[in-house]
Amino acid sequence: MRVDELETPAPVIDLDRVEHNLAKMQAYCDSYKLRLRPHIKTHKMPAFAHRQVELGACGITCQKLGEAEVMVDAGLDDILITYPLIGPAKALHLAALARRARMSVAVDNPLALETVAHAAREAGCTIGVLVEFDSGNKRTGVVSVDQALDLARRAGAAEGLRFQGLMTYPSTVATVAFVAEAKRHFADAGVAISVVSGGGTPNAWHAHEVAGLTEVRVGTYIYHDRATVGAGAASLEECALHLHATIVSRPTEDRAVIDAGTKSLTSDLVAPSVGPGYGLILGYPDAVLERLNEEHGILDLSRCREKPALGERIRIVPNHVCVVSNLHDEIVMSRDDRVVDTWRVAARGKTR
Amino acid sequence: MRVDELETPAPVIDLDRVEHNLAKMQAYCDSYKLRLRPHIKTHKMPAFAHRQVELGACGITCQKLGEAEVMVDAGLDDILITYPLIGPAKALHLAALARRARMSVAVDNPLALETVAHAAREAGCTIGVLVEFDSGNKRTGVVSVDQALDLARRAGAAEGLRFQGLMTYPSTVATVAFVAEAKRHFADAGVAISVVSGGGTPNAWHAHEVAGLTEVRVGTYIYHDRATVGAGAASLEECALHLHATIVSRPTEDRAVIDAGTKSLTSDLVAPSVGPGYGLILGYPDAVLERLNEEHGILDLSRCREKPALGERIRIVPNHVCVVSNLHDEIVMSRDDRVVDTWRVAARGKTR
Repeated sequence: MRVDELETPAPVIDLDRVEHNLAKMQAYCDSYKLRLRPHIKTHKMPAFAHRQVELGACGITCQKLGEAEVMVDAGLDDILITYPLIGPAKALHLAALARRARMSVAVDNPLALETVAHAAREAGCTIGVLVEFDSGNKRTGVVSVDQALDLARRAGAAEGLRFQGLMTYPSTVATVAFVAEAKRHFADAGVAISVVSGGGTPNAWHAHEVAGLTEVRVGTYIYHDRATVGAGAASLEECALHLHATIVSRPTEDRAVIDAGTKSLTSDLVAPSVGPGYGLILGYPDAVLERLNEEHGILDLSRCREKPALGERIRIVPNHVCVVSNLHDEIVMSRDDRVVDTWRVAARGKTR
Repeated sequence: MRVDELETPAPVIDLDRVEHNLAKMQAYCDSYKLRLRPHIKTHKMPAFAHRQVELGACGITCQKLGEAEVMVDAGLDDILITYPLIGPAKALHLAALARRARMSVAVDNPLALETVAHAAREAGCTIGVLVEFDSGNKRTGVVSVDQALDLARRAGAAEGLRFQGLMTYPSTVATVAFVAEAKRHFADAGVAISVVSGGGTPNAWHAHEVAGLTEVRVGTYIYHDRATVGAGAASLEECALHLHATIVSRPTEDRAVIDAGTKSLTSDLVAPSVGPGYGLILGYPDAVLERLNEEHGILDLSRCREKPALGERIRIVPNHVCVVSNLHDEIVMSRDDRVVDTWRVAARGKTR
């Protein structure tokens, strides 16, 4: 079956592009002796995680325990949770995984550290700890080296925990300064930092310029999207996931409506410098996907010389592909625009 | 189990509030002799659809065939698809449903009408047709009465189709003028309009003021959300779905991070007049949920006198509750803050 015979809307992955993207990032990391620990949040599929490890990844990254559970069930090992876990329910959830696979967790506060310690005691095994610091993103992460050292010392002193190093997202210029200062203070205190883990696909090709970095966590690079193309991290031809849609209404000369809205694409935008609207329409670069409802996408065609016709199929490069994966239970796999398989997005919807 | 013992993030529904909301809307429609045809897109659960019919709804509304399929499987009947369907794949999909349940479909163009006709021939039964017109939303819908009459005539002439009337979303002042003009022209042409179907929860309590309306399609009223409260269609105490989350990081005095991001809430905003941010934090009305990543929600606490502590649990009234339903495989049902059951969101993710 050809991909353009699929009922729309349909996310379709080009496996050749995936393979190219995976190999390219692994080769980059290898060439700079950086360890690659892919974030599975983009694909959420065990088969792709296995392929990443096969190509040389040192392990995987998950954001949530529910995602890690799917990966452990599928035989993946050495999993870093880059998320502060808080409370007894999370401790028991983590303990159940730590009995089955090597786990490490990033923390940025004492309560999160205590949760990991609780899990290690419960599981009777060792869990790795990284301390998350803020590189300017103003999200999670300690904001001073003193705080990082305090958490590292507590981790070193706790039964069942092994302090491994530092973690941040994304890697930026501020990362370098923080790491340099941390290395001095930690050395003075006799605390070894063996891992410095940074992340983010948009800056990934500059990871070797971030002094001190030992590990790269990237997710989006497997498929790429309008945002990573806009950031200069990929070409449009490297975008491996397209959303196929149909023009279902043409109420006026300048307006078309497609059968894909926020339930297929989410309402995520990109930086204004990258472009307007909720996705890039291939073949109609001047069409603006200006408004989405749950099932409707409204295209402004006023700037287009050629305009898509009623019933025509279009392909969209999503603004942010990770969130698109999360919306779909299954995704079609293709080569040369022919359907080769349909895979379940096994770790979608795992918010806990 | 108490709802505040649930692992977070967790969407939790208060069944007493649901029952109140369902009964209130049915009573309103009954009092004005309007037929109520609830849109299942908000709850996506057959049990709630059955309850709506039990209370007096004339049938249900679905946006997509995949949603209708779940409902037909669960024994629901008399289903209106308020969406233009285009192409042979959709025709076969619709035909399969039309063999099992009374179906009608809204169309706004000849290709969509032909798709419904194809389905009726394929199924060997009658499918109802409504013509969608635009009440100013600039989405789908014909923009002139002439176009509506043309489609109605074609529907009347096609084997297996039964023209039923007009449909629009949302019902507005412009609805009244279009319907009045249509009634004159259709009467002159000898085409009967038996149904005029309008929709939208924000304006629902004004449906009786829309001259000519016979049917009300509303979805959000079952749970309500920050948007419908902002529109004056509900009180905060009528919001039946809360997202429970935990403060997992407190990097600075004015910043808290919760374990719920776009994967739990989506990136939908509300009108600026309703308020800033990605949801309303109960108990902390001055906290602004200013930024979401997939799993992180960043709270700006700078305007709060009281500030939530690390590890504290909070409840969020979502901006747009329909999209929240779509993100979660299961939702906890509660009464008096005690868990009474967990229901599967059976029609979530059905974009086709």
